[in-house]
Amino acid sequence: MISKKMEKLVAGSSVIRAMFEEGKQMAAKYGAENVYDFSLGNPNVPAPSEVNEALLDIVKNTDSLKLHGYMSNAGHEEVREAIAKSLNKRFGTGYGASNVIMTVGAAGGLNVALKAILNPGDEVIAFAPYFGEYNNYVANFDGEMVIITPDTKSFQPNLIEFEQKITNKTACVIVNSPNNPTGVIYSRETLTKMGEILEKKQKELGKTIYLITDEPYRELAYDGIEVPWVPQFYKNTIVGYSYSKSLSLPGERIGYLLIPSEADDFDDLVAAATVATRILGFVNAPSIMQLAIAKCIDSTTDVSYYDRNRNTLYEGLTKCGFTCQKPEGAFYLFMKSPMEDDKEFANIAKKYNLLIVPGSTFMCKGYVRIAYCVSYETVVNSLPKFEMLAKELGLK
Amino acid sequence: MISKKMEKLVAGSSVIRAMFEEGKQMAAKYGAENVYDFSLGNPNVPAPSEVNEALLDIVKNTDSLKLHGYMSNAGHEEVREAIAKSLNKRFGTGYGASNVIMTVGAAGGLNVALKAILNPGDEVIAFAPYFGEYNNYVANFDGEMVIITPDTKSFQPNLIEFEQKITNKTACVIVNSPNNPTGVIYSRETLTKMGEILEKKQKELGKTIYLITDEPYRELAYDGIEVPWVPQFYKNTIVGYSYSKSLSLPGERIGYLLIPSEADDFDDLVAAATVATRILGFVNAPSIMQLAIAKCIDSTTDVSYYDRNRNTLYEGLTKCGFTCQKPEGAFYLFMKSPMEDDKEFANIAKKYNLLIVPGSTFMCKGYVRIAYCVSYETVVNSLPKFEMLAKELGLK
Repeated sequence: MISKKMEKLVAGSSVIRAMFEEGKQMAAKYGAENVYDFSLGNPNVPAPSEVNEALLDIVKNTDSLKLHGYMSNAGHEEVREAIAKSLNKRFGTGYGASNVIMTVGAAGGLNVALKAILNPGDEVIAFAPYFGEYNNYVANFDGEMVIITPDTKSFQPNLIEFEQKITNKTACVIVNSPNNPTGVIYSRETLTKMGEILEKKQKELGKTIYLITDEPYRELAYDGIEVPWVPQFYKNTIVGYSYSKSLSLPGERIGYLLIPSEADDFDDLVAAATVATRILGFVNAPSIMQLAIAKCIDSTTDVSYYDRNRNTLYEGLTKCGFTCQKPEGAFYLFMKSPMEDDKEFANIAKKYNLLIVPGSTFMCKGYVRIAYCVSYETVVNSLPKFEMLAKELGLK
Repeated sequence: MISKKMEKLVAGSSVIRAMFEEGKQMAAKYGAENVYDFSLGNPNVPAPSEVNEALLDIVKNTDSLKLHGYMSNAGHEEVREAIAKSLNKRFGTGYGASNVIMTVGAAGGLNVALKAILNPGDEVIAFAPYFGEYNNYVANFDGEMVIITPDTKSFQPNLIEFEQKITNKTACVIVNSPNNPTGVIYSRETLTKMGEILEKKQKELGKTIYLITDEPYRELAYDGIEVPWVPQFYKNTIVGYSYSKSLSLPGERIGYLLIPSEADDFDDLVAAATVATRILGFVNAPSIMQLAIAKCIDSTTDVSYYDRNRNTLYEGLTKCGFTCQKPEGAFYLFMKSPMEDDKEFANIAKKYNLLIVPGSTFMCKGYVRIAYCVSYETVVNSLPKFEMLAKELGLK
């Protein structure tokens, strides 16, 4: 007697989450050190010490009613102000508290943004490969996904197809850079062109198209590469941020939406997002975590840890004969499956206790995602297993 | 360019939340001590000291990856186990971790349960007066509210009308006891009859009807009155609990759903609720608060504080000539409006800096809700203002 929509979703469930559960079972069976679980984006680097110091300080020194009580649905005013100031310092912007709505992670933020914007039947464009949960978030509000096929050379978005697929039903576009699952960072050139196309199409169609940029990986970039600030390229941008990866707090569910004052219908959009936060049942982002992140606003996780994993994994896999996209950011490596069926490939890898996620989960068949937010030892010890896998498949 | 549904919601917004914002502005203008803000169910009693002690202990002694990392979408296994055990001790039940799904407060839990159950057009029955947000939660999943008119003598649910309004479109029923806004506790007699009606109708119609019981006020009962455990009266019950009021943690968003193993389609229901938790964007309930509540599972707020407020307010208002329902639980007092238009009455009250919520917000015109989860001083100092209000309206 469950909902028909949910019947399908339960049957399909999340491949990634199923693997996470399977990984826990395998660890119990074979010993954690003998399972190479690259399935979930669950950071292995502990939260920076500032986070726990902030938590201790807050618990000791904040009045209980303020610390644990309700605040405005958009979040604590001073926390939103602190985030705005930090962004202004980094990006030369002029945001204030009114541009920021605290959310239950980026997943909560994306749902809030989509609830605020979508009418049933509206189209939402996303660039494959992308995080498969977007499909569910859009379906929550009866939107229709329009998928742009991947450019598997660069994994930058395919902007020619993008322009062709914008219609008067397009309500918004979702981008994600640094990208899950490819690790690619969308360049200034890409974002400039994308902004131009959107401006042009808005005029042509006489309607607003919002660009939602999902940015949990913003602070995770390697080799000094720039992660451009998307609202600088297009004013109708909504930024969805999360501290899950930048401060290793995925279980705490803390993030924000940033809506620039220049965005069309700014007041309505902020009001709608605030009401959506309430009625979707979030009510507000967890109070203690709001206060904590405001106290360590400029801290970030130890990116060098992931960088070492990245280089070791990329070199090791390439040596085995695998074809890999070298990640520029995030903590995912996107690898070509040596056989057509990426699900079968992921299944064969399981024989070696290697848990990797088929690219079809990200609307991109023929590839697999390897989440390297694991211990360095896991990376190093997995390489002989990957070598055996490569040999079995005749790669060397 | 916001969604059409949201346009209406923004325009209507929440009367209670608007008042909360207005109260903050009035406090800034007149001084907090001169504003009698009875609008929001934001507990004035600090969290029990055990909560902050637990938080300090957890932050100091838990591995960061465990403390702040992802866990299964349903929550930490040992937390769910601890909740099940605590319920078993209290209610003689036999629950385990598999019966419990951690949620982002009761609001999150209700959305998860409704997402799991509802198909578009399904009917959801609720008994007026009820928390107006139920309308929004049900609309999130395209359900239709069916409202049972109040029995204004006892404010126990009107079971004759209830039986008549159950149809083959009824998917679930929402109850809330101790009740917001009346403070009434549904009796064993009520729940026995309700369970019998539901059993009979299920057989007659050949379908499952779930009973969702929203229980954030379960621990707030006065004069030793029993709050019966609803699943004992009807097996297809889903309990939505929150620690917002029982531990004064409304800003932290922590609660759970309990689904008894005897419920129809138990496995599917739990799987659907778990997936719904993920795809609605909650992902999981905040990790640190999960671990904290497990450490103070048998603590509760200081009910005697609210009890003193209750008695003082009830006696004071009655003396002024107002007609009040004496609350048995929660921290709300439901008072008859001396004039037909409860919104106008609430507006007149504002002249005396008294912020009270019109009953029409709870689908019950002609009444107002007074949330007495405020300081004792606020209650005492408000009484002369209520007296002036009574005089203006010719009550004495």
